Amino acid sequence: MVRQEHITLAHGAGGQMTARLIREVFAAAFHNETLARLNDAALLPLPQGEGRLAFSTDGHVVQPLFFPGGDIGELAVFGTVNDLAMMGARPLWLAASFIIEAGFPVADLQRVAESMARAAARAGVQLVAGDTKVVEKGKADGLYISVAGVGWVPAGVAVEAGRAHPGDVVLVNAPIAAHGMAVMLQREGLQLESDLESDAAPLNEIVMALLDAAPRTHTLRDATRGGLATVLHEIARAAGVGILLREAEVPVHPAAADACALLGLDPLYVANEGVFVAFVPPDEAGDALAALRAHPLGRQARAVGEVLAEPVGQVVLETPLGARRLLPPLGGNLLPRIC
Amino acid sequence: MVRQEHITLAHGAGGQMTARLIREVFAAAFHNETLARLNDAALLPLPQGEGRLAFSTDGHVVQPLFFPGGDIGELAVFGTVNDLAMMGARPLWLAASFIIEAGFPVADLQRVAESMARAAARAGVQLVAGDTKVVEKGKADGLYISVAGVGWVPAGVAVEAGRAHPGDVVLVNAPIAAHGMAVMLQREGLQLESDLESDAAPLNEIVMALLDAAPRTHTLRDATRGGLATVLHEIARAAGVGILLREAEVPVHPAAADACALLGLDPLYVANEGVFVAFVPPDEAGDALAALRAHPLGRQARAVGEVLAEPVGQVVLETPLGARRLLPPLGGNLLPRIC
Repeated sequence: MVRQEHITLAHGAGGQMTARLIREVFAAAFHNETLARLNDAALLPLPQGEGRLAFSTDGHVVQPLFFPGGDIGELAVFGTVNDLAMMGARPLWLAASFIIEAGFPVADLQRVAESMARAAARAGVQLVAGDTKVVEKGKADGLYISVAGVGWVPAGVAVEAGRAHPGDVVLVNAPIAAHGMAVMLQREGLQLESDLESDAAPLNEIVMALLDAAPRTHTLRDATRGGLATVLHEIARAAGVGILLREAEVPVHPAAADACALLGLDPLYVANEGVFVAFVPPDEAGDALAALRAHPLGRQARAVGEVLAEPVGQVVLETPLGARRLLPPLGGNLLPRIC
Repeated sequence: MVRQEHITLAHGAGGQMTARLIREVFAAAFHNETLARLNDAALLPLPQGEGRLAFSTDGHVVQPLFFPGGDIGELAVFGTVNDLAMMGARPLWLAASFIIEAGFPVADLQRVAESMARAAARAGVQLVAGDTKVVEKGKADGLYISVAGVGWVPAGVAVEAGRAHPGDVVLVNAPIAAHGMAVMLQREGLQLESDLESDAAPLNEIVMALLDAAPRTHTLRDATRGGLATVLHEIARAAGVGILLREAEVPVHPAAADACALLGLDPLYVANEGVFVAFVPPDEAGDALAALRAHPLGRQARAVGEVLAEPVGQVVLETPLGARRLLPPLGGNLLPRIC
């Protein structure tokens, strides 16, 4: 990266610019094997005993702080819970760091804290540590929250981005694009005739049901920043495989699809907070899909594609008319500050 | 807390206002036993095996980002390493969350990342996970970093704020007030004739040496935000004891003392980044002091006071002339954004 460059919003969008920033600045400085695996959470052996931990962190700068179907506090709890769940871990403990702008209403902070407590209870995790810093008015945007989490990885579980394998069936648990469009419409003050709400939800329980039904699941990832297209690109690169995505099979939240059509946005790149992809060997795919559909967060689960040996690191989109074309990675910044 | 109130800089200063915010907003929402213990890090039993983990997080908003003797990256690494060390834990892994203002120079980000990598290597910890968010220009102040950390607590170690006991000798490893005054002078553009530098340092090694020499050490705490006076108040409250502090025995960095005198500040309330207090039973105090003095970060270690049965929750200052008076807790905001 050229040293005269400056950080832009696109560096935070989760696409190619984010990947380059992480590779050229952070990975270059911190090079170690755990970071290099590009997972949602680090997988760590303990100094004593058989256990492995999953450890992850996620910063949240969503604007507005309160939006249809959720708020920054709930998002911060579920975001980290889901990063741990995507490693097959049982989320146990969270630690939250608050950066607050002077002048922020204490009542809003209480509302966020109470929302976090409810979200933690729903996900079955404990918030055990925290820190609070205050900056001058004009040096933040109300409230930023970073949440780190620790989970326990049961023996035998080996779910990683790099394990996706040719032949794997790609499953999605729920319709895409609800979260990003709900936040976007709220922020821009657009009043569409819709009941569009964020899909923010804790995915640890449905993941456990999936792993019980399909224990040889190779890869899990929640399709947050950059949307379904971006996580498929990340997995294709990490595993050195190609991924075929059948557009006609991808469930899209109807109101989010309308909003995308109106605004000229592609739902494949819109952030979700309750959607994940699972890469499952073909002989376990039927059981996996049944397990997802038996859970309230997976009633509309679908098989949306499969893993190919090539083109390595690429995603191939099969259009509803049967044409195949390369799905480009996210370039610039579709929707800033959506999480 | 009155619901019409707004957050002020004093809520972030580490003193009474911070304690009230944590009690009335966060502890009220998240009430659980681990948070209620008011330690520097949470102490957590694992689902399997004998091990216990320490888990902590700390946000950093220091301004300027680069100051004599350190920078925000080094501070963020050592801050979390030290929170873990204060529980008697061996720090193992860190996860960093970056919130970056658009327009921030990539070269500065590289400088911070490289500083964090050096600090992690010096402390013997690995940075294993991270997250990056970007906000619009004018919605941050260059760069904020939150670092969470996980450490391993060896069997038999039981160091907690609530264990300070009447008769314990209070030890300090190094002269106070260097960090806060170094950042303050840099920020205000004051050019004093001094070599004043931040004392930022990883304290895990010297703590291990101390615990080897004085295994029945009751309490450790690093004297960061709010300074020595504030951590003594925290411990007095957590343990339900009084603490006698002999002012004449407290080592103060000479250049920091000069700067404090010039600006009318009390060094007892100025933040440190390489200073901690240890509460040690009297029969181990001699060995503890010798162990501290044998380490490069403890050459000027001193016994500065002792634990009293009362006044409960208070700190009694014995002045150089032998008078005794209550040392007030930090009220407002001495030095904002010092860490």
